[in-house]
Amino acid sequence: MSVYQTRAETLIQALPYIQRFAGKTVVVKYGGSAMSDPALRAEVMKDLVLMQAVNVRPVLIHGGGPEIDRLMERVGLKPKKVDGMRVTDAETMELVEMALGALNKDLVAHIQAAGGKAVGLSGKDGGLFAAEKIEANGKDLGFVGRVSKVNPSVLATLTDAGYVPVISSIAVGEGGQTFNVNADLAAGTLAASLKAEKLVMMTDVEGVLSNYPDPKSLVSRMTPDEAKGMIKSGGADSGMIPKLQACLEALEGGSRSAHIVDGRKPHSLLIELFTDAGIGTMIVRF
Amino acid sequence: MSVYQTRAETLIQALPYIQRFAGKTVVVKYGGSAMSDPALRAEVMKDLVLMQAVNVRPVLIHGGGPEIDRLMERVGLKPKKVDGMRVTDAETMELVEMALGALNKDLVAHIQAAGGKAVGLSGKDGGLFAAEKIEANGKDLGFVGRVSKVNPSVLATLTDAGYVPVISSIAVGEGGQTFNVNADLAAGTLAASLKAEKLVMMTDVEGVLSNYPDPKSLVSRMTPDEAKGMIKSGGADSGMIPKLQACLEALEGGSRSAHIVDGRKPHSLLIELFTDAGIGTMIVRF
Amino acid sequence: MSVYQTRAETLIQALPYIQRFAGKTVVVKYGGSAMSDPALRAEVMKDLVLMQAVNVRPVLIHGGGPEIDRLMERVGLKPKKVDGMRVTDAETMELVEMALGALNKDLVAHIQAAGGKAVGLSGKDGGLFAAEKIEANGKDLGFVGRVSKVNPSVLATLTDAGYVPVISSIAVGEGGQTFNVNADLAAGTLAASLKAEKLVMMTDVEGVLSNYPDPKSLVSRMTPDEAKGMIKSGGADSGMIPKLQACLEALEGGSRSAHIVDGRKPHSLLIELFTDAGIGTMIVRF
Amino acid sequence: MSVYQTRAETLIQALPYIQRFAGKTVVVKYGGSAMSDPALRAEVMKDLVLMQAVNVRPVLIHGGGPEIDRLMERVGLKPKKVDGMRVTDAETMELVEMALGALNKDLVAHIQAAGGKAVGLSGKDGGLFAAEKIEANGKDLGFVGRVSKVNPSVLATLTDAGYVPVISSIAVGEGGQTFNVNADLAAGTLAASLKAEKLVMMTDVEGVLSNYPDPKSLVSRMTPDEAKGMIKSGGADSGMIPKLQACLEALEGGSRSAHIVDGRKPHSLLIELFTDAGIGTMIVRF
Amino acid sequence: MSVYQTRAETLIQALPYIQRFAGKTVVVKYGGSAMSDPALRAEVMKDLVLMQAVNVRPVLIHGGGPEIDRLMERVGLKPKKVDGMRVTDAETMELVEMALGALNKDLVAHIQAAGGKAVGLSGKDGGLFAAEKIEANGKDLGFVGRVSKVNPSVLATLTDAGYVPVISSIAVGEGGQTFNVNADLAAGTLAASLKAEKLVMMTDVEGVLSNYPDPKSLVSRMTPDEAKGMIKSGGADSGMIPKLQACLEALEGGSRSAHIVDGRKPHSLLIELFTDAGIGTMIVRF
Amino acid sequence: MSVYQTRAETLIQALPYIQRFAGKTVVVKYGGSAMSDPALRAEVMKDLVLMQAVNVRPVLIHGGGPEIDRLMERVGLKPKKVDGMRVTDAETMELVEMALGALNKDLVAHIQAAGGKAVGLSGKDGGLFAAEKIEANGKDLGFVGRVSKVNPSVLATLTDAGYVPVISSIAVGEGGQTFNVNADLAAGTLAASLKAEKLVMMTDVEGVLSNYPDPKSLVSRMTPDEAKGMIKSGGADSGMIPKLQACLEALEGGSRSAHIVDGRKPHSLLIELFTDAGIGTMIVRF
Repeated sequence: MSVYQTRAETLIQALPYIQRFAGKTVVVKYGGSAMSDPALRAEVMKDLVLMQAVNVRPVLIHGGGPEIDRLMERVGLKPKKVDGMRVTDAETMELVEMALGALNKDLVAHIQAAGGKAVGLSGKDGGLFAAEKIEANGKDLGFVGRVSKVNPSVLATLTDAGYVPVISSIAVGEGGQTFNVNADLAAGTLAASLKAEKLVMMTDVEGVLSNYPDPKSLVSRMTPDEAKGMIKSGGADSGMIPKLQACLEALEGGSRSAHIVDGRKPHSLLIELFTDAGIGTMIVRF
Repeated sequence: MSVYQTRAETLIQALPYIQRFAGKTVVVKYGGSAMSDPALRAEVMKDLVLMQAVNVRPVLIHGGGPEIDRLMERVGLKPKKVDGMRVTDAETMELVEMALGALNKDLVAHIQAAGGKAVGLSGKDGGLFAAEKIEANGKDLGFVGRVSKVNPSVLATLTDAGYVPVISSIAVGEGGQTFNVNADLAAGTLAASLKAEKLVMMTDVEGVLSNYPDPKSLVSRMTPDEAKGMIKSGGADSGMIPKLQACLEALEGGSRSAHIVDGRKPHSLLIELFTDAGIGTMIVRF
Repeated sequence: MSVYQTRAETLIQALPYIQRFAGKTVVVKYGGSAMSDPALRAEVMKDLVLMQAVNVRPVLIHGGGPEIDRLMERVGLKPKKVDGMRVTDAETMELVEMALGALNKDLVAHIQAAGGKAVGLSGKDGGLFAAEKIEANGKDLGFVGRVSKVNPSVLATLTDAGYVPVISSIAVGEGGQTFNVNADLAAGTLAASLKAEKLVMMTDVEGVLSNYPDPKSLVSRMTPDEAKGMIKSGGADSGMIPKLQACLEALEGGSRSAHIVDGRKPHSLLIELFTDAGIGTMIVRF
Repeated sequence: MSVYQTRAETLIQALPYIQRFAGKTVVVKYGGSAMSDPALRAEVMKDLVLMQAVNVRPVLIHGGGPEIDRLMERVGLKPKKVDGMRVTDAETMELVEMALGALNKDLVAHIQAAGGKAVGLSGKDGGLFAAEKIEANGKDLGFVGRVSKVNPSVLATLTDAGYVPVISSIAVGEGGQTFNVNADLAAGTLAASLKAEKLVMMTDVEGVLSNYPDPKSLVSRMTPDEAKGMIKSGGADSGMIPKLQACLEALEGGSRSAHIVDGRKPHSLLIELFTDAGIGTMIVRF
Repeated sequence: MSVYQTRAETLIQALPYIQRFAGKTVVVKYGGSAMSDPALRAEVMKDLVLMQAVNVRPVLIHGGGPEIDRLMERVGLKPKKVDGMRVTDAETMELVEMALGALNKDLVAHIQAAGGKAVGLSGKDGGLFAAEKIEANGKDLGFVGRVSKVNPSVLATLTDAGYVPVISSIAVGEGGQTFNVNADLAAGTLAASLKAEKLVMMTDVEGVLSNYPDPKSLVSRMTPDEAKGMIKSGGADSGMIPKLQACLEALEGGSRSAHIVDGRKPHSLLIELFTDAGIGTMIVRF
Repeated sequence: MSVYQTRAETLIQALPYIQRFAGKTVVVKYGGSAMSDPALRAEVMKDLVLMQAVNVRPVLIHGGGPEIDRLMERVGLKPKKVDGMRVTDAETMELVEMALGALNKDLVAHIQAAGGKAVGLSGKDGGLFAAEKIEANGKDLGFVGRVSKVNPSVLATLTDAGYVPVISSIAVGEGGQTFNVNADLAAGTLAASLKAEKLVMMTDVEGVLSNYPDPKSLVSRMTPDEAKGMIKSGGADSGMIPKLQACLEALEGGSRSAHIVDGRKPHSLLIELFTDAGIGTMIVRF
């Protein structure tokens, strides 16, 4: 069989998956090496263009910790964190918005360059994300919040017209104050509000590990109850907790499945969507 | 690289082709072994479903010589041909219509079974094909004609709603008389009337051969003038002439390219559309 | 009063009926002499075109016993029936499909010739009819089934675009097997699934006869309960039973009335729809 | 053949005419006995409802000389005319508008009562008719004008939604002044502006008479040139001149035919449209 | 601050009101001095055009007592009233329709002249208002009725296309009889049937007065219960009763507020809608 | 006259302007004090919301020199300019994009807070702006370019859905390189590509001064030829040249007028659009 026939066979093997996800919304939380490594970044953006080309409706949401840290350092500020959350005063907030904004438009430009169509948004555009201030165990974090309300109409406008929305994790609080929100959690809230078919969290680990950090302890499939149990029991490491919480919120909001995948592997998105490979951890009701 | 990553790579390699043909109409003349071999038939129908899934708009047109011959034999009639054309009296015409009708619906059923959507038509449906009687060098052939007018509105209704039209080569003459028309030529007329992006003729040879029947003499690419020259000079064998004429009519009508491909090879349609393989003969303006 | 004024008066008398049925779906089971007599066939097709012209949405469904028998005889096969149902082996099934297919497209051609628009379908097109195998009192009949599911979306596509769907009584079973289904019963299932305003069964008798075969014993109007009673009590002759069952299914599915009319009388369809003539038997709730 | 079959036959005979005029606009100038005789008025309105039911798009325009005269007499004013045109001072203009307005809504009510849908307009609604003052051979007539511009968008809004527009011959001049316009001429201008398929002028004579008033001298068919010749030569009587001019304007504007019919005969509209009777005078290019 | 800056400030002050009423339907009962005074009439029509320009959807309904009286006097008839309602015999009914019709089209012409778009209707158009005969304490009033049913589809057709419907208070009873209906009450029924955001009754008093006719006793705001109490207790003067009843019907039908405003003051409509001025009496649930 | 009546009068005075600009696109180049002064910034954003509320379609484009300078200083870089253009190396380009991005979203947030709807874009979103590198009299400026192609489809998607597009002056060159483009010139190119009704350039001067910097020498109105003459003759000061060039490009592309207004004055946008005040300089063909 020629190489071309092999390629045609591969397309045919993808057909049932393409049919299953046609017209469906998939929220992708983007971050980690898949974002910071320039080659991987270009590849992930191409994966999104392919998804769009076969009628999946991807919605991308991203944070940008390293980009923010780098800008803070350039202006001579030292990032401060409490319980893993960035303490965000007014000056920091402005820098966060700048760093995420430039990153956001870079992702857009990659999608456009690959022949796709994208528009970059923050939670300010079209009133997408309203924020509510949060604290860390009683400690004030400044302008750090959670998404308290999603107004998704701007997303419908864009996806109906064939654009991939690329969203940075910024939201607007009372009085118009800008807030920094955790992108993992925002992804879960967004997936729930869109009743997305799938939420995919791209991370720098193999998935959920029952015996962290042993990669052989990868859990391929969990129920929501098992995920809740792992959070409660302390079995999940601290970086994994918001990811699991996001998955749980998506499933409660109506998503069919939520996935924690290893973004360090090329095309992890395509493999998750269009093959039968067990990749990372899938959380699903039954 | 894992097998799944290879598969993902293959999808990504197909992306530029998917983008190029999205929303475009491709007329496929279907016949030969690709139709008579049950395994190949099922595969070609799947290929059409994949095309549809990535937003190509395929329109299938087919004849059915062997099926007609078989039915004639069963009722004790002997097929008669003049210059390769079937002499078609009233009794034969009825059998032609029966044989093609059953074949047509079988193709439809295969597409539906693969998760696609299809409707089977003859040139009678929605007044699709008007016929004009033809002769063979002065000899009367009975109810044998050519498509003199295409009314494509029923095709637009169906393709807009996501159905693949599957068309048998039957047309309607003056006074409502049913006519048998050559499927190769009808495919060319149809592609021209739809200003299809591409016409693909599926045959049982490698393509156009400059030194027939030597497969090594395959011509990969021809201009319309070269194709006309080959017909005039007698360089084309008799089976190839109507195929070349169909290609020429499609190109004159506005198609960007016309292809004569080897339907005996699995997935020749997908390979032609979604890879850079030089398969069969492409006729293109420059 | 001139002949032309009489004609104008006639149109005005039809007006309330035209208004009542505008935009409504009417399923017509077509068969018997009205189909086998060429002159009547042409007239019935014209009647459908008139219905379409005054905004009724006719859907035609037909069998074709005599056409099937004729083809079987031509290939040297002898039709076999058990309890009025055709024993259908693979070879017969293919002939059934051929005979019905040619008949189907002939009806389409007549509608087109009368200035209407039509598309011919079998239960394979757009996955219209799913079949389930049936038996006759424990005896195996081969590929004989009943319509177990209707997927009417292809009909909506066609009627919205102004086409009369003309449907042959073929359905698809598990594994893609083609099945022969009783057209009377399929008409009832179809009317129910479309919540058609009316189901009209064209037959070769005056209607339901309380004292079969005395034409003077015609029952003009029955309730569903009366129809069920007649079936149970054995008061209905065997040919009438599936017709009554079809009417009952239509009414249970939401049709307002079901009619058994004498297709031997010219324009019985128009008379039923557009005049106050009591023609045949009407089954209606109250 | 039963009376019901005769009726069905009549419907079938009307079919080609129904098909020819489906979707076409027909402007009807309504007046004379067909309007003043209550029984005829009710019948004509029903004829319009039938036209609407078979997808013709009628647009009615009317004057109302007798109704105006009657109201003027009731308030003790004496109608004055110059060259057949009503001298219209401010007081008269108000009475004209009142009389036409009540008549207009009565026509609407008749259409609604017959199961149709109608909206009554004057040239003021939606800025339908702009007026330009005219004189009669140098004599001032007051607020008498001609339609200088048609803004037909309100008509499209109404006919697209299935309403018959019923229009009284009132127009608006500079400074918002109300003008009385000749309904015959306005009908011609309106037909031209709508590129109506047909203009039908309903009158109290048989049609154009070559030897007025001898009814045997009816001219069944004229070319525009013949109509112009008849006006120039003085062969047309004074009441016929504006009707002929209206027909000519319609034809110049793109109408296919213009008709002067005898409104005293019941159903003259339906006879003109849906039979092959030569009724009245048809003016047509060739 | 320059005069132009003041003007810009004023626009900005109106912005929240414009935003609040964008896309909302406001029914305006028009009458009194605001209608009989030509200068005020022109201004109110301009106010409607402004409302339309900022995306409010006004629907105007009017009576025309003085216009009717004037026409009756001109034909030598003496208006007769019982309990404030006009005794309406057939002759009077015709004059009512004439007077209202001319007034209606004059309002339309004013709106058009101000650059707006309007269509004048009576309750006959599109079957808008069905009437039911009423009596006055057992005394027969002739053709006087109340609106028993509203068919608002013609209004949706017109407002969707950007026209202001201007409606005269005429309705159609059984057998097609024309009825005179109280415009105040019809306005309430109409507002309820449209679930209008607001009903505004334009009158010749300051609003509801608790100590009639002392203008200082103006009640700025009432609940429905207070309004009902005032009617029951006899605290409302007779002219105010139908206005209060109309307001109550609107509120019961789903309107958010109902207003009785002083039409003698220029721009009372705009002031009510686009400023925070307490003008007239507002009836609102809480 | 009460204050509320004065306000209503003001709305009525604005009506002809609202009617004239309804549905029209107005491109606003935003910058200078109107942007850097927080109070003015909030007011201008409100002005845009008002424009949107009265059906004008504003498109905002902005630069951000001071914001860029400020960020550069914070990271210890010194802005360098040649002929008024910023020398832009890779590091600077990233800071430009960050500074403009944060500013862009702040403008969006202001519009949303005022009850409007907005989406912030750079020239990367939807492939809006393609760039072409430019030089300054032979000197290399790094990543400085001009907009060589506009792809406005994303703007149509957003304005059709009621969003104000807010655009930062960033474009994409060959190979995906980000370019800094002059916002004045980009505004002209954008207005031309959209065939905007109007281009309004907000600046920190009164308008075009014939005797710079004497404010009394304000030129209220110029023709394109006069504007070209002023550029050629050296009569325009250097800051004004790109603004005049932008105006000329807009007019050549089909805009009806181009305006240079004083953004320091509150509500200059509203005054320009909705009053007859001669504000700043209008460039118009005749």
